[in-house]
Amino acid sequence: MKPFADLTRFINPRNVAVVGASARESSQGRRLYDNLVLHSSVPGEIYAVNPAYQEIGGRPCWPSISALPRQAEIDVALIMVNASLVLDALRQCAARAIPFAVVMTSGFSEAGEEGQRLEREIAQLCEATGLHVYGPNCPGFVNVRDRLGMTFSPAFKDDLNTGSIGLATQGGGLGRNLLQGLSHGQGVGLWFSAGNEVDLEIPDFIAHMANDPRIGVIALLMEGVKDGRRLTAALELARARNKPVVVLKVGRSEAGVRAAQSHTASVAGTAAVNSAVFRQFGAIEVDDLDQLLAASRLLTRITPKSGNGLCIHTFSGGTAALAADIAGAAGLPMAVFAPETKAALRKLLPDFASIDNPVDTTADILRNPEASAACLRAICADPAVGTVLFPIPMDYGSITDGMAQAIATVAAETDTLIVPVWMSRRLGGGFQLLETAGLLPFLSLSDAIAALSKAIPWKRPERGTAAAPAHADAAPGQARMLSEAVAKSMLRAAGLPIPEGVVAASAEQAAHEAERLGFPVVMKVVSAQIAHKTEAGGVKLGIASAGAAREAYAAIHESVARHHPEAVIDGILVERMLPPGGREVLIGVHNDAAFGLVLTFGLGGIFVETLRDVAHRMVPLSRDDARALLREIRYADMLDGVRGQAPADRAALEELILRVSDFAWSHRDALLEMELNPVWVGAAGQGAMPLDALIGLRANADPGLELRQP
Amino acid sequence: MKPFADLTRFINPRNVAVVGASARESSQGRRLYDNLVLHSSVPGEIYAVNPAYQEIGGRPCWPSISALPRQAEIDVALIMVNASLVLDALRQCAARAIPFAVVMTSGFSEAGEEGQRLEREIAQLCEATGLHVYGPNCPGFVNVRDRLGMTFSPAFKDDLNTGSIGLATQGGGLGRNLLQGLSHGQGVGLWFSAGNEVDLEIPDFIAHMANDPRIGVIALLMEGVKDGRRLTAALELARARNKPVVVLKVGRSEAGVRAAQSHTASVAGTAAVNSAVFRQFGAIEVDDLDQLLAASRLLTRITPKSGNGLCIHTFSGGTAALAADIAGAAGLPMAVFAPETKAALRKLLPDFASIDNPVDTTADILRNPEASAACLRAICADPAVGTVLFPIPMDYGSITDGMAQAIATVAAETDTLIVPVWMSRRLGGGFQLLETAGLLPFLSLSDAIAALSKAIPWKRPERGTAAAPAHADAAPGQARMLSEAVAKSMLRAAGLPIPEGVVAASAEQAAHEAERLGFPVVMKVVSAQIAHKTEAGGVKLGIASAGAAREAYAAIHESVARHHPEAVIDGILVERMLPPGGREVLIGVHNDAAFGLVLTFGLGGIFVETLRDVAHRMVPLSRDDARALLREIRYADMLDGVRGQAPADRAALEELILRVSDFAWSHRDALLEMELNPVWVGAAGQGAMPLDALIGLRANADPGLELRQP
Repeated sequence: MKPFADLTRFINPRNVAVVGASARESSQGRRLYDNLVLHSSVPGEIYAVNPAYQEIGGRPCWPSISALPRQAEIDVALIMVNASLVLDALRQCAARAIPFAVVMTSGFSEAGEEGQRLEREIAQLCEATGLHVYGPNCPGFVNVRDRLGMTFSPAFKDDLNTGSIGLATQGGGLGRNLLQGLSHGQGVGLWFSAGNEVDLEIPDFIAHMANDPRIGVIALLMEGVKDGRRLTAALELARARNKPVVVLKVGRSEAGVRAAQSHTASVAGTAAVNSAVFRQFGAIEVDDLDQLLAASRLLTRITPKSGNGLCIHTFSGGTAALAADIAGAAGLPMAVFAPETKAALRKLLPDFASIDNPVDTTADILRNPEASAACLRAICADPAVGTVLFPIPMDYGSITDGMAQAIATVAAETDTLIVPVWMSRRLGGGFQLLETAGLLPFLSLSDAIAALSKAIPWKRPERGTAAAPAHADAAPGQARMLSEAVAKSMLRAAGLPIPEGVVAASAEQAAHEAERLGFPVVMKVVSAQIAHKTEAGGVKLGIASAGAAREAYAAIHESVARHHPEAVIDGILVERMLPPGGREVLIGVHNDAAFGLVLTFGLGGIFVETLRDVAHRMVPLSRDDARALLREIRYADMLDGVRGQAPADRAALEELILRVSDFAWSHRDALLEMELNPVWVGAAGQGAMPLDALIGLRANADPGLELRQP
Repeated sequence: MKPFADLTRFINPRNVAVVGASARESSQGRRLYDNLVLHSSVPGEIYAVNPAYQEIGGRPCWPSISALPRQAEIDVALIMVNASLVLDALRQCAARAIPFAVVMTSGFSEAGEEGQRLEREIAQLCEATGLHVYGPNCPGFVNVRDRLGMTFSPAFKDDLNTGSIGLATQGGGLGRNLLQGLSHGQGVGLWFSAGNEVDLEIPDFIAHMANDPRIGVIALLMEGVKDGRRLTAALELARARNKPVVVLKVGRSEAGVRAAQSHTASVAGTAAVNSAVFRQFGAIEVDDLDQLLAASRLLTRITPKSGNGLCIHTFSGGTAALAADIAGAAGLPMAVFAPETKAALRKLLPDFASIDNPVDTTADILRNPEASAACLRAICADPAVGTVLFPIPMDYGSITDGMAQAIATVAAETDTLIVPVWMSRRLGGGFQLLETAGLLPFLSLSDAIAALSKAIPWKRPERGTAAAPAHADAAPGQARMLSEAVAKSMLRAAGLPIPEGVVAASAEQAAHEAERLGFPVVMKVVSAQIAHKTEAGGVKLGIASAGAAREAYAAIHESVARHHPEAVIDGILVERMLPPGGREVLIGVHNDAAFGLVLTFGLGGIFVETLRDVAHRMVPLSRDDARALLREIRYADMLDGVRGQAPADRAALEELILRVSDFAWSHRDALLEMELNPVWVGAAGQGAMPLDALIGLRANADPGLELRQP
């Protein structure tokens, strides 16, 4: 691997030559020269080079690099001449042992074959001579913190706000967006933008910034990865130096994936591999430019405390609820207040305020900016609070100005990270105040929480410590649960397709019925007290002979008695087994407090709990609803043919969903819940059939309901 | 279901009474009275009611509602007295047959039991008398378009921008945010905010707005659903009237889900059911307040053309690529330009611009605002372009001001939706111009694309018409594919656990080896030409006897010969079959152009293509990397025990991943790709073992490599 370049003389050159400096006002060559002469502080000399001039703006101009005074020890040559002249200029640089050249001119590999050839020659020259070339096809380099603009950008003279963010971009334009956004507070210290990267590359800049003590955060805007191993080595170095790296990778379409015989490459995809590598090497990947800006800035502000826990603090109940919703969905850990914090808030706030997290001071606080600052101080003093999200939902003129001032004051005092969100599009004085204070107010809650989620190393509770949801065979509560056999006979009577089966009361009867039905059969315990039959050993599949049926009968009785000594066993259900290869789905209905009966469709069996891939509709459903459900689940593809599998019988599944909906609707006064899981779905033409059924009726439902089917 | 209230006299009352009007400056009672007297245009009389005053601001004041002049026909009584006095005031309203009362006072169900009791009494009064009550605990009602502020908000006097958006909120505060955001262009015409909704509810307001010809879009900000069936009936009505509904539902935590014996209810969850119902009834659900605002406004601007296709138009290549990435990820259909459009752009733009969609005019356009408008006109004239996304990445002062003016000008002429994005935080003149023109510039690409995705009815190509990825048994290209048997022996030699097996050359040998290995066995065709053996009928599972092994041998030969007459069959691999109940995962390695060998881990078998649940690491991996991979896949739970299943053997799986990584790394010069799929993973202690293996070497790799294992 090519070692990283030592950029010391490049970042802080003593003497600079400008090849292609121009006397013509508003030409790029003039702007470049003026940026150095008028707007930069270069400790040594700036040499203009252009055979067309003797002097530019009253200063001397030389015809070529070779013609420069022998004693001129140039650190960086800036080259802005026609592409066809670049190679010659670079050769002169190499001949004089100038270590760095910046080629701004366009017309190289981005322009076609001739440009690509030129670029290859530059690369060879670099390799042969040790000359380092930055570019070509780039806007140059800006060392904001030392006021050095090796760029033709007319905006450079206004790049006055500096700071600890180091920025490397490939395309030139978008870096400007970040500089404009970071014009208060911690700004950009160095901005590399090396265009075609013929020699110096993003990894060289990352490596430099990782070692640069004045850079704290590295922001990258990348379009392609030239050399993955150099990139990861540079990221590794940044991680070793504790410099967080934020990256926005543009060009994530899947088009570039090579055709491959294995699945691996096509499943991987270039974008996914990039993302995985960023994750592997600790870089934070973002999806948009505003996120790159916000996350980079947040990273300059975080302290060791920031990840302790999130507090939401606002003066509107709706805003508090909304922010808590979005933070909850993002999985941010909410801080639990110490008793002293609550006591302090209790004193400061009216009785009807919420002194728990999220804090809703109520609009009462608007009359009292002092209380606003005092609340914020109390919250920031709590060790459990690492970050305070402070949404301001409306612009209330001088009232919200005062609140913004309180935020800025407290933010300057505390090591707790305070993140304001200015939610109104009326960007009043309060917004300006927060912006000028360098707090970079977010403009939407979602954006703020997304950035907090990515930039802050939250101390999350260990996975798996949360209590598992109580499920098991809970007491039926208000529901009267029907046994599978009763539920199925009710559904069969209502016209649903149900596997043929009989409840057997003895091993002998089981064997006899199994023979009559035809092997293989399934046998299942019938008991209203057992909701999870499989776990209780109450289900035997694939029984292939009368002898096996007798054995299964005994085994089920034995196992169920061991797991549920209290359960009443009504018999053993013997059913024909459906052919293998069907998909398993779930169709369920439950009673929602607001909407009444709601039907759920999704992938069945173990997928219910792992994938939770379900979709819902209010009962009753139309045929369009049923069809839409099949499309709406995330892995709707499961119903199509994958790997040579035949497509599922969608028509039968739709029909079954409609029948469940009709069944539920016609029993809407009595039905609390029902679940068909799994429902077997065969290939097109084979049908769809519930293999298991659970029905829960209201305790006060007509006790004869399940028996009085037509 | 309670019928929807007829709100005609409420929306446009002739005479209004203000109970609790106050003479005290800056009291809420005074602000309410002043909003009506000074800032509203009420066609009839405004009656002040307060026993403490004879007159307020020079106008008469009555002691009670009962004491109002007999001929005063009041349409709405606004009530702002202590909670304990409200019921009496409402009784007086009912006695005078006043149809509507707005109770603004707090201290009802939100405050505790006594308040809940009072609220129940109000409900009973409404039911008994037909009085309609709006509130309590609310900021009132604002009819912006007719200048009627039945509210105590001091901000009402500035609510001057009106339009076709109808807004209903529950909590009061956040509606203000929307009014502030919609202060130019189409604004809010009616704003309902009925607090505790004791009688009039969100569905009543939706129903009114659905029928109101001056309302075009309905925006809802909801905290709870009181009556799901009334809500859905109102949404149904809005859909029937072609009024789009946008809803932000606050309070989506899962806490409210009742314990249930079936999975359905707990999988469903209140929030998911709410979302499903909104979808079922055609409402557009958004996640944040700025999205509610943006989507509502977009909906006032869309035309029948808007969904035809998206065009991205900008002057920066990086921005064009970024926008295309984000739009692609959101699945927005990109417009394909007509030849005339391209010809027009070709004339207007420099050679190096991109005249395809996304259009990159290049920064050249910055010198020429006329060309900017002309390009935009040409694009908008294309029938395939329904919406133009116009990101402006930087503020360039007067240059971007001119561009904003061009956008505003063209937007006023065309039925193509133009959506500007002002990406810089420097909100200069161009931003202000777009804002004032009512174009509501977005501030981030992601936000803009999320809103476009939700608000616009895109005409998407029918699902499934896209060509399936060419997979099948493609030509091996540059890779030399090893047969499964050779690949497995290579892996076995490298120390990977591989099922015991032998390649049989005859049916007799197969039967013999199967007996030696012990039943059941698996038999698979061995041929370097067949990548997908199952589809070719080249795999038989669960072979339980010597006779079955002979049959399988013949059947495989027959089927493979039919599917791949050209394939060379090297024999039939006979392997011991692993015990049932294992999970299937995939471990693969491929060669990434930038990063070299990359390992992929994920769920295997059919899940590879359906779930695409995979994670990646660069080779070589550390043990931490391997461990992290197991956690990183989305359905990592699959490796834990679900439904009584034992947890998977994670230790063995980690070890296997490391061995694959080592194997790949040690053959990094020769290896192009490898895939172990499925890998069988047993319960803890049972191990993990690849059941199938595919290895592709570089065509120029040492031909003896696979044979020369230690």
